[in-house]
Amino acid sequence: MNNSDIRLNNLVLPQELGRLTIPQCEYLCREIRQKIIKTVLKNGGHLSSNLGTVELTVALHRVFHSPADKIIWDVGHQVYAHKLLTGRYDNFSSLRKENGISGFCRPGESEHDVFISGHSSTSISAALGFAEAMKQNGNKHHAIAIIGDGAFTGGLAYEGLNNAGKSNDNLIIILNHNDMSISKNVGAFAKYLTSIRGNTAYINAKKKVEQILANTPIVGEPIKNFLSVSKTAIKSVVYHSTMFEDMGFVYLGPIDGHNISELEEALRAAKKLHKPVFVHVNTIKGKGFRPAEINPGAFHAIPSSGYDKKNPNNNVTNSFSEIFGKKLCELADKDSNICAITAAMKYGTGLQHFASKHPNRFYDVGIAEQHAVTFSAGLACEGKIPVFAVYSSFLQRSYDQLIHDASIEKTHIVLGIDRSGFVGEDGETHQGLLDVPMLLTIPNTTVYSPSTYKELEMCLESALYKTDGIAAVRYPKGEETVTIGIEDTDSFSLLQNGSDKLAVSYGRIVHNLYAATDCDVLKLVKIYPIELSVIELCLNYKEIYFFEESSQAGGLAERLLAILYEHGYRGKFVITAVNGFVKQASVSSCLDKYELSVLGMKKILNLNESVNIEN
Amino acid sequence: MNNSDIRLNNLVLPQELGRLTIPQCEYLCREIRQKIIKTVLKNGGHLSSNLGTVELTVALHRVFHSPADKIIWDVGHQVYAHKLLTGRYDNFSSLRKENGISGFCRPGESEHDVFISGHSSTSISAALGFAEAMKQNGNKHHAIAIIGDGAFTGGLAYEGLNNAGKSNDNLIIILNHNDMSISKNVGAFAKYLTSIRGNTAYINAKKKVEQILANTPIVGEPIKNFLSVSKTAIKSVVYHSTMFEDMGFVYLGPIDGHNISELEEALRAAKKLHKPVFVHVNTIKGKGFRPAEINPGAFHAIPSSGYDKKNPNNNVTNSFSEIFGKKLCELADKDSNICAITAAMKYGTGLQHFASKHPNRFYDVGIAEQHAVTFSAGLACEGKIPVFAVYSSFLQRSYDQLIHDASIEKTHIVLGIDRSGFVGEDGETHQGLLDVPMLLTIPNTTVYSPSTYKELEMCLESALYKTDGIAAVRYPKGEETVTIGIEDTDSFSLLQNGSDKLAVSYGRIVHNLYAATDCDVLKLVKIYPIELSVIELCLNYKEIYFFEESSQAGGLAERLLAILYEHGYRGKFVITAVNGFVKQASVSSCLDKYELSVLGMKKILNLNESVNIEN
Repeated sequence: MNNSDIRLNNLVLPQELGRLTIPQCEYLCREIRQKIIKTVLKNGGHLSSNLGTVELTVALHRVFHSPADKIIWDVGHQVYAHKLLTGRYDNFSSLRKENGISGFCRPGESEHDVFISGHSSTSISAALGFAEAMKQNGNKHHAIAIIGDGAFTGGLAYEGLNNAGKSNDNLIIILNHNDMSISKNVGAFAKYLTSIRGNTAYINAKKKVEQILANTPIVGEPIKNFLSVSKTAIKSVVYHSTMFEDMGFVYLGPIDGHNISELEEALRAAKKLHKPVFVHVNTIKGKGFRPAEINPGAFHAIPSSGYDKKNPNNNVTNSFSEIFGKKLCELADKDSNICAITAAMKYGTGLQHFASKHPNRFYDVGIAEQHAVTFSAGLACEGKIPVFAVYSSFLQRSYDQLIHDASIEKTHIVLGIDRSGFVGEDGETHQGLLDVPMLLTIPNTTVYSPSTYKELEMCLESALYKTDGIAAVRYPKGEETVTIGIEDTDSFSLLQNGSDKLAVSYGRIVHNLYAATDCDVLKLVKIYPIELSVIELCLNYKEIYFFEESSQAGGLAERLLAILYEHGYRGKFVITAVNGFVKQASVSSCLDKYELSVLGMKKILNLNESVNIEN
Repeated sequence: MNNSDIRLNNLVLPQELGRLTIPQCEYLCREIRQKIIKTVLKNGGHLSSNLGTVELTVALHRVFHSPADKIIWDVGHQVYAHKLLTGRYDNFSSLRKENGISGFCRPGESEHDVFISGHSSTSISAALGFAEAMKQNGNKHHAIAIIGDGAFTGGLAYEGLNNAGKSNDNLIIILNHNDMSISKNVGAFAKYLTSIRGNTAYINAKKKVEQILANTPIVGEPIKNFLSVSKTAIKSVVYHSTMFEDMGFVYLGPIDGHNISELEEALRAAKKLHKPVFVHVNTIKGKGFRPAEINPGAFHAIPSSGYDKKNPNNNVTNSFSEIFGKKLCELADKDSNICAITAAMKYGTGLQHFASKHPNRFYDVGIAEQHAVTFSAGLACEGKIPVFAVYSSFLQRSYDQLIHDASIEKTHIVLGIDRSGFVGEDGETHQGLLDVPMLLTIPNTTVYSPSTYKELEMCLESALYKTDGIAAVRYPKGEETVTIGIEDTDSFSLLQNGSDKLAVSYGRIVHNLYAATDCDVLKLVKIYPIELSVIELCLNYKEIYFFEESSQAGGLAERLLAILYEHGYRGKFVITAVNGFVKQASVSSCLDKYELSVLGMKKILNLNESVNIEN
């Protein structure tokens, strides 16, 4: 095959990868990189991490036979090359678009996407499940987890590791070590990995020590003394010299993650061992795209609205996240008790301002949402006001900590819940549709859902100073809408149009409601607990239409209905909310689909009869 | 002071502990042990783990000054000696009784219980929160976490460790290493700890190697070669020879946890260092009580109903857990795809039968509920039918994994949810009152709530074979009640008494309802999703009384009301359920308090008007 024939669209993939020479593979890697860069800069998506795994992906598909061998990608930030090599090339321009290719692994999309990905640190546990099942079935194929050092800060990864190391399976864990999670990776473990990463002489030195200890005659008095006393001790530390070996794995590495030969050699060695193997691969985030190599954090996620390549800082526009970050920093200027906590989302949550101004009170804990909440509770017990800024979907990881470590004792912690509601192109794994139902099950919790920047600022201040227990302020991804003539509040406001119908909503879609109807409109901002004055107000109406950008089951509308019912309300009560999981599509398309856009709301309000509630 | 004066009730504690001699302390430890054994055998509670920490507790309170120094006990299984030394001696006979001393740390009970405990693996994160807050406040006191090797299998502990090791705080982590979690501890990490535990020469050998490497002239050819090549490599492995040192801690240990002098020496050394220290303490679970030393698992938790000391196996009575375990084992005899998973609760969940009969399909993953679910999802992807048996309260740890790793792709995993509803003496941290609201927020989930053993068996079979997605079977702690003349079902059943009132319930309290009323009674067994036939049935009535042994907000009653409302129901709908957290008290006392006993139900049904719904 000529190099010029080595094109993604000329090959039967992934099968024919194995027939290529190393230079041909390198040639293909260049095409893969170009395709990724071009598509991501156009469609948005994760750039830096996907550029770092091109050679690793090619090597994996040469050594293993997907889908018989199970290649399980953690998070999925790193999966674009895998997609291009497993049947998604032709349709790759639909990446992250409605009905298009997902930016993460989706089993429904391809038999090569064997496990769903989106949230971090799941791959080792999932791969161990596959490996154990295959063992039971007498299947000799391998399960391979590819997990970044960032995802290793999550406790689930450690739980997986703890169970995997004792197994005797065809399980291979590949550490994709790029020294970044989303911002710079943090924590003791990261420091430890980096100490191994730098030590290229590691394996050779180890071999040498081992040989010599076994064969050398003992010479010289102090040395003799030294060796006879400590031979066993030394042997044990030399043999078990990485944490992974301590945990039962064969450790291979560190490997140059951009050298296909070296990668293949390690993977073939791992494949032959038939026991748990840990392969440490060094990669460069953003590899092959100069701006991303220099500033990988800025190129972690590219928005779909286009991107200024030359000046990534120009891409920061105003947003709820920015306003949150700035306001919190401003409040912290005046109150030294305020602490800010993020789980590896310093930039995403707008906390970079706080971090640079108040570094001693800023905590990036890694992808460790459980720890973030329990740590916050500890801070609060000593008089601090901790504010944990987190994406709605990832807060699900903290459910038990919220209940057990904060709610029971009414410990005052503040949650800044970003990306609540529809998130658009990230799809079903990232939607912020469950935080309201989740928080409503937790006693001693106050929930704010501002609809404008000004309201976000007011709510944040109220959450800090006017509540106890858990105080959550939730706000959507992106920019505000403002309806002229409507007051900002941290409580609720009624727009009276002289109607006997009441339309109710909260969060950003309130503005759609103002545009959609002449009914009276109740905007809830402090949405929970439901105030008695809100209940009394509702009881004045004969028809209530509740629009909620949230999952319906256990959501605010159902809660309000139960309370109103108990107060004797028997009028019309129509709930428009979300049921089930919502696939990737623009936010406006999602709002349309669930009748939460202006048009959809009009339709519901004019129907004059109940819509079906799916169960 | 004479030894005879060294009595818990003669001393001002914990302050006067510091004045005692070591033999006097040992004398006091004997009294503490006797008090614990006597009280626990009478009241029930955790025995083995509390007997293991007596000397450690005394040493801690001699070296540190609680509550200025923050002593944070993980889980709380180990906290009885601490309670006896900090003001709870006089009232200790009320241990685990209604309005009495809690079996866990409760900040409301004493200023010495600085952080709530009940769920595992929280102490490091909490202690780090205290330590960071104290640092910010210029407070030089210490935060000390005491955590068992069992709790170390939880990912949250690792998240905490990862963040703690990089800090420069007055933080001390004490590993209470007894080689047990609740059953025998599992996992690679446990094996690793045990390898250190055994190595008493560890510290001395390390010191020696270090000295010699620094001072020795190099003599002899092969040795010279060896040292010059690998001196750096050896130094690095010798210095960083435990995982904890790798993670940034000073490691002290292993220490004999029953030798007060040795303990004190280590704690004083740790106190002086003013950086993160990891103290490895070896203890014997059940120490000082022969039957518990021999069989610590059997003496982990003693029921309040009394205990057969001589033959602990006699204490296993029939219970929902036992029936679950036996039925699952029986089904697994016929179906080799069934796998059983537990998070360190083999005996508690009745899985010992499965474990001994099908060891290759039985997985005790440690206290790692997150991993348990994601691992189950992996097994399911390869055609297995994983059944994760877990206590209701601990399932809260898996919320995100249920959503992300199972629900989205409708992956078929089965949950055996034990201890659902009131749990009695363990109190608010262990109540099983949130599993229903939690599961109802998760799409693609079927929930069964059997009221008898027979129904549990039927539901388990249906969950395995007649559902997809997540199938949960929830059942209470303890024994069944049977109402004669009522059919067992895995769906629902209506007892017609010719009434126009309908009383609805599910789970064990259905039997109270049968006894309480002449209304028609609807027993729900497959409680969710709510079947259309159930809705149609309800619509025939003018008054519905729903009794729920669950948290009300987002519970089944509110869900049913929302659906009925949408179908036009406007009759009476009275919900009797639980709001807020429920303190320790017998199950029957809790049922009384929330009007879920026969008497309470009668009261509600006769009131003929709605009860208040707290918001």
